[in-house]
Amino acid sequence: MRDIPERLGLVAIPVSGEPVFVYCTIEGEQARRESWLEELVGYTEWREQPIQTLARVLAEQGVADGRIGVEKRHLSARDFAELERSMPKATFVAADEVFDRMRAIKTPAEIETLTEAAFSTDIAIRRAFAQATVGSTEREIADAIIAECAARGGGRVVFLTVATGPNGSLVHAEPGDARLEPAGVIRTDFGVGWGHYLSDIARTAFVGPITHQQETTYMKLVGAQEETIASVRPGEQAKHVYRACADAFARRGLAFDIPHVGHSIGVGLHERPMLQPFDETVLEPGMALMVEPGVMTTDGFYHTEDLIVITENGNRVCSRSADWATPMVLS
Amino acid sequence: MRDIPERLGLVAIPVSGEPVFVYCTIEGEQARRESWLEELVGYTEWREQPIQTLARVLAEQGVADGRIGVEKRHLSARDFAELERSMPKATFVAADEVFDRMRAIKTPAEIETLTEAAFSTDIAIRRAFAQATVGSTEREIADAIIAECAARGGGRVVFLTVATGPNGSLVHAEPGDARLEPAGVIRTDFGVGWGHYLSDIARTAFVGPITHQQETTYMKLVGAQEETIASVRPGEQAKHVYRACADAFARRGLAFDIPHVGHSIGVGLHERPMLQPFDETVLEPGMALMVEPGVMTTDGFYHTEDLIVITENGNRVCSRSADWATPMVLS
Repeated sequence: MRDIPERLGLVAIPVSGEPVFVYCTIEGEQARRESWLEELVGYTEWREQPIQTLARVLAEQGVADGRIGVEKRHLSARDFAELERSMPKATFVAADEVFDRMRAIKTPAEIETLTEAAFSTDIAIRRAFAQATVGSTEREIADAIIAECAARGGGRVVFLTVATGPNGSLVHAEPGDARLEPAGVIRTDFGVGWGHYLSDIARTAFVGPITHQQETTYMKLVGAQEETIASVRPGEQAKHVYRACADAFARRGLAFDIPHVGHSIGVGLHERPMLQPFDETVLEPGMALMVEPGVMTTDGFYHTEDLIVITENGNRVCSRSADWATPMVLS
Repeated sequence: MRDIPERLGLVAIPVSGEPVFVYCTIEGEQARRESWLEELVGYTEWREQPIQTLARVLAEQGVADGRIGVEKRHLSARDFAELERSMPKATFVAADEVFDRMRAIKTPAEIETLTEAAFSTDIAIRRAFAQATVGSTEREIADAIIAECAARGGGRVVFLTVATGPNGSLVHAEPGDARLEPAGVIRTDFGVGWGHYLSDIARTAFVGPITHQQETTYMKLVGAQEETIASVRPGEQAKHVYRACADAFARRGLAFDIPHVGHSIGVGLHERPMLQPFDETVLEPGMALMVEPGVMTTDGFYHTEDLIVITENGNRVCSRSADWATPMVLS
């Protein structure tokens, strides 16, 4: 449970032998049912500290004085201090990058799940937009997106931005009471759980009559996204994609003011590599990247986001249930 | 954004002078709009590390070689290591308990929000249950709860358990395709955002015809909850409430196998005090506690949960929109 940060689930993976899953007994039946790990050790909250149970498991694995890699990004400073106190003879090393690399290349089954998630999320957004009209509120559109997505198998809503009018300039606006107005802009950015994986799709549409300025800017944005996607190839570094997007924006006279233009996705929302100017990860087949350029206008933020899977020779776009290359105009 | 754990929001609070909010520029307009803090310093993701920006702010506050309290439960081990590296002359002290104490006593406005959240969540559950019949799926009931709650002002779904049949024994089951059957049990545990605050309500109902065994067990559970609530008084320790619940279960011949029987709530789901056997926090007026006993039966987990606000002389139950003291039986 993400909102009870102390209720830790921990896995101790020895170099050889079976990994052990340390779980909270309150979630015991679920841990046994959902995990493929076979060695499970439970701790009872408040009677036992999860870190103490982990230290015992690690000692049984023979590494009480060993060298232990820790995903320090996901362990709190308090828990890590407790772990160091509990295992004074062990050496702890930040192992975040090992896990980043391991998660970056997806299995075919993972790609299938991520594709289903992204494609279904896109259908849900398209259908919810199609039902919206002048007068619809952000919240009504949000509810429609959630319902359409749930009907297709979507789970936990990770985040859901729906913005129109003055909220358009808030990148992560919560849906509220603002209503669609003629010649307005509607934007969503929506992430939802699909089994243990996530989707993350952003789309922008327009309320008729669309202005010439709106159409021009939108076409520039999707054109720049296409060019960015074309730069996603095995052998290139992640930062190359960021550079390609900056260049595509410049060529179209679009203001480029985004710290990243995309990210890997999987069990986490922003996995590595990140399509940002300093990420030198070399792209490889099997990576799943969200490519999400956006541009701030006087009319709010325009945003589009697609799932790209890297193949042997290039990439495949996996998230388009409809033609987003021309602006969607609601009546 | 909770699912991008690296996108930190940090506040540096000096002993005297203005607190400074360190925010990510991507969320800049939102930070300015939603925060009551007036001093804001942004960092641009990837170009600047949030911890470096924080260290600069702290140095400007004059504590480069000072003593700095850190909420270590909410800072990752990686970020804390970075903070120690960035401020080699400072002394860092775990300050989690200071924040726990500060959050434990709610202001009248906070109590009003928490009450509205809890009461509205309870109405939503009651109405969704009332619409359910034999054949309804867990997912349909979950969707109805979400829709009813959103219509009343509920925000982000923090977690939503809906369980019937064999899933009844999973404490935090995700809603699935299981259908209500005659003489079955339906249970939910639902937490939702209300502005920056949270609700958390658990309820159990029955599909007719209710069996004698079900009715007896349910009545024992709600009776035990009443006795537990009666033990919530200023001046008592939190662990006393746990003990009172254990005693109430024993007197009724109910198996008592729960690590805690409730918790404080606010901006976090499980705040302090926790109603667990080792928490010696003295209860005070203005505390908001969830009291949530549950009992595992051959028929699944029976669970009930209410918001209790501690007053000068005792407490007030703030979450009952209907009579849950007798079993709700769906047709």
